[in-house]
Amino acid sequence: MQVDLNADMGESFGPWNMGDDASLLTTVTSANIACGAHAGDPDVMATTMGIALQNGVGIGSHPGFPDLQGFGRRRIHMPAGSLQNSIRCQVGASLGMAAALGASVRHVKLHGALGNMTSEDEDMARACYEAALSVDENLIVMVLAATAQERAVRSLGCKFACEIFADRAYNDDATLVDRSIPGAVIHDPQVAGQRMVDMVKAQAIITDSGKHIETPIDTICLHGDTPTAVQIAAAVRDTLEAANITVTQFAGRTA
Amino acid sequence: MQVDLNADMGESFGPWNMGDDASLLTTVTSANIACGAHAGDPDVMATTMGIALQNGVGIGSHPGFPDLQGFGRRRIHMPAGSLQNSIRCQVGASLGMAAALGASVRHVKLHGALGNMTSEDEDMARACYEAALSVDENLIVMVLAATAQERAVRSLGCKFACEIFADRAYNDDATLVDRSIPGAVIHDPQVAGQRMVDMVKAQAIITDSGKHIETPIDTICLHGDTPTAVQIAAAVRDTLEAANITVTQFAGRTA
Amino acid sequence: MQVDLNADMGESFGPWNMGDDASLLTTVTSANIACGAHAGDPDVMATTMGIALQNGVGIGSHPGFPDLQGFGRRRIHMPAGSLQNSIRCQVGASLGMAAALGASVRHVKLHGALGNMTSEDEDMARACYEAALSVDENLIVMVLAATAQERAVRSLGCKFACEIFADRAYNDDATLVDRSIPGAVIHDPQVAGQRMVDMVKAQAIITDSGKHIETPIDTICLHGDTPTAVQIAAAVRDTLEAANITVTQFAGRTA
Amino acid sequence: MQVDLNADMGESFGPWNMGDDASLLTTVTSANIACGAHAGDPDVMATTMGIALQNGVGIGSHPGFPDLQGFGRRRIHMPAGSLQNSIRCQVGASLGMAAALGASVRHVKLHGALGNMTSEDEDMARACYEAALSVDENLIVMVLAATAQERAVRSLGCKFACEIFADRAYNDDATLVDRSIPGAVIHDPQVAGQRMVDMVKAQAIITDSGKHIETPIDTICLHGDTPTAVQIAAAVRDTLEAANITVTQFAGRTA
Repeated sequence: MQVDLNADMGESFGPWNMGDDASLLTTVTSANIACGAHAGDPDVMATTMGIALQNGVGIGSHPGFPDLQGFGRRRIHMPAGSLQNSIRCQVGASLGMAAALGASVRHVKLHGALGNMTSEDEDMARACYEAALSVDENLIVMVLAATAQERAVRSLGCKFACEIFADRAYNDDATLVDRSIPGAVIHDPQVAGQRMVDMVKAQAIITDSGKHIETPIDTICLHGDTPTAVQIAAAVRDTLEAANITVTQFAGRTA
Repeated sequence: MQVDLNADMGESFGPWNMGDDASLLTTVTSANIACGAHAGDPDVMATTMGIALQNGVGIGSHPGFPDLQGFGRRRIHMPAGSLQNSIRCQVGASLGMAAALGASVRHVKLHGALGNMTSEDEDMARACYEAALSVDENLIVMVLAATAQERAVRSLGCKFACEIFADRAYNDDATLVDRSIPGAVIHDPQVAGQRMVDMVKAQAIITDSGKHIETPIDTICLHGDTPTAVQIAAAVRDTLEAANITVTQFAGRTA
Repeated sequence: MQVDLNADMGESFGPWNMGDDASLLTTVTSANIACGAHAGDPDVMATTMGIALQNGVGIGSHPGFPDLQGFGRRRIHMPAGSLQNSIRCQVGASLGMAAALGASVRHVKLHGALGNMTSEDEDMARACYEAALSVDENLIVMVLAATAQERAVRSLGCKFACEIFADRAYNDDATLVDRSIPGAVIHDPQVAGQRMVDMVKAQAIITDSGKHIETPIDTICLHGDTPTAVQIAAAVRDTLEAANITVTQFAGRTA
Repeated sequence: MQVDLNADMGESFGPWNMGDDASLLTTVTSANIACGAHAGDPDVMATTMGIALQNGVGIGSHPGFPDLQGFGRRRIHMPAGSLQNSIRCQVGASLGMAAALGASVRHVKLHGALGNMTSEDEDMARACYEAALSVDENLIVMVLAATAQERAVRSLGCKFACEIFADRAYNDDATLVDRSIPGAVIHDPQVAGQRMVDMVKAQAIITDSGKHIETPIDTICLHGDTPTAVQIAAAVRDTLEAANITVTQFAGRTA
């Protein structure tokens, strides 16, 4: 029994720092590295990929809406073709930087509002994934388990990895409990870790009501931009390993 | 006897058009396509590369300073490492988009102020070229003949192609005659064409004073953003072919 | 009987030109000048305002979504407060540049997707207008007649001017006929001019079905970015004047 | 005997925070607030100005080169007219936001590389100040004492305030000791405070060699983006007040 741990990284920009990537990169096994559109700049990409490479962490391309001020969290209604071309350039930049460092990009994950919209809209998800795969057909597509993203990727015949959140409660339809509801965000590292053990062992999302939604669980998303991110990540990893679940990179599955 | 014809392209942005790329792509054999930093956006890159591919025109990555308003023509003093990382991302974006279209990027050429500064500063040129080659070591580097760019590329052991301008007069030190001096810019297509025939046959830059500066001449730069660009390009090509000089893509030479 | 003629202007950016503002500024009486967020840059603003000032054309601030590539035509879902702050800065930039030229800003009009969204959403329109008026309470707010924009502005107690389109057909609910439907866009300058005479005389939008929607008509929007924009503008102006309708700046009305 | 304390602020952007402005605004008497070109965004401007207003701190406009990634610290060679228009828009945005908050902008100070270049180049300084004053002739121009900035402002007949650094050692020509030289940056708050007392009492810059360069001293620049910024600022203020120097806003002087 094994699982991967991933976190968004490389989200600094110019003089502005975000997160403690160097520390988090000692815990996670996959890093989703911003491509300069919603966060990250060429220097940040280089630095983050360099540390990931050094730590044997899998490098992922993490495209988002081109919107620095909004950090890619604003929904932008752009034509599908323009969105695809933006993703092609972002993934291309990731691949270019990785190549320059003697590394390679293993996976791709959509960021922020782009992730949210594609978890609801299978056509949009498929368009985004096709764009990324058109640049490199061997990319493993990281999808939110049991959402439109997973349905899209299963229809494409590519390699993919299913993801759940360590610190978010789930509704019975596999959506996340709204942040405004008490208990929506799990702050206790031990609780978060035990939940992950339970879900990985069940290979199911366990919802707030106790319902099990069967799904492959290939990777667990940890948040990197909170003050306690590094501690939570370490606690989740420790709890998983104490339960004899190996923490290692996903291989990518096919439908 | 043969020579390549190149022009800067893909310099539109969003709703704003620049140049008649579709027409020019029926005449040139190599296209230097902007990467989104000084001009071009992902849609423009896709469109321009698509037409180049259709016409059998060699696709080049054309990185510049990240400065849309200044069109990459303003000298920006950024740290060498940051400049290199910017070039890596720009070239990566080009490669990514080309791959998505089933095409590939053959060459790289520096734009605007970045081209000017590197034609004067061999270390800066070498840093930029190393950055591009770190992404893809097979790129052919297009350099301004007889400048610091050529010296830099010869020290790197990579493939390169030497370029002269169709419509600019030269000083005896191989620099361009300042635009403020009468005759600095050649407007007559026939004159421009005949000059190119003379220089290609001589394999030398012929300066205003009649001096010959020996240099390989692999490609001729045509300007794409003037009202008569298409006509001048066609006239230069016709004049070359009438003189039995084959117009075809450069193969890339090594030092 | 009188009416104002307005057009969007100052939509060039850096090296990229859009429209023939200098010509159009000899015909219109009010210019909606982009503020640098969706189009326009400081140089373009200075040039356009300078010509407007010289021609006695009323200067307007024309804020839009911060989205150059999308030209402000993409719907972006940003928090109301952020949108208001963006508008404050855009209007401030307009006022600053106008002051530097010894001119002043008379009116404000929302651009593109921001205009569309606020013509449907009265709360959003009110938020945007409050933001602009917080910078200068004397601004005349230009609104799309008979839409949520007009309702918003009437609730604010500020000065406003009601606008109709010269070249667009109307549905019976005062929305524009979708561009995909034949006849949605009027291309014949004479037809456009006569329609405007009829509507101004009726002080009503006359829909495709012949229905009259009563509304003040203070200004007519002409498009500036089409090849025939200058001719259509001149024809509309001539037709209005031939019908004894004075073409002059609106004074601004209150609810 | 009195002096003003100023610091650069409002340098956060989107999701990225910089400095502890809220704390620093309890110590300084003037705030140089970024305008969105090199740092700051409309939300950050609004927040920072709001706190400054609440604390009775003088609000300044702090334009810089349009270069977010480089934080305005890269020298960019742009035409003087373009630079002026950029400054007009940036100052206009400051004035617009201040007006929206019921506040006003008292002073203007140039940021980063723009500050450095204008401290060496009197013509460039004059061009920048003329641009700012063309938007509002009542602005007090904050200049680096005994540099080309001071000479420029004295030739313009406007109000100005002369500034020295709390934490930087000076050469005998009034330039700053290069950061690479030991002692160039004063890290000890007490030492920094005593230096300021000495210089304010002497109304002179006291150089490393002990030389006195006579100059009005109207304001002391404190840095806001270091971990100990808040403590240093408080210590300098305490030391000044203990020496019976009143810390209060400058009134602006004329040549």
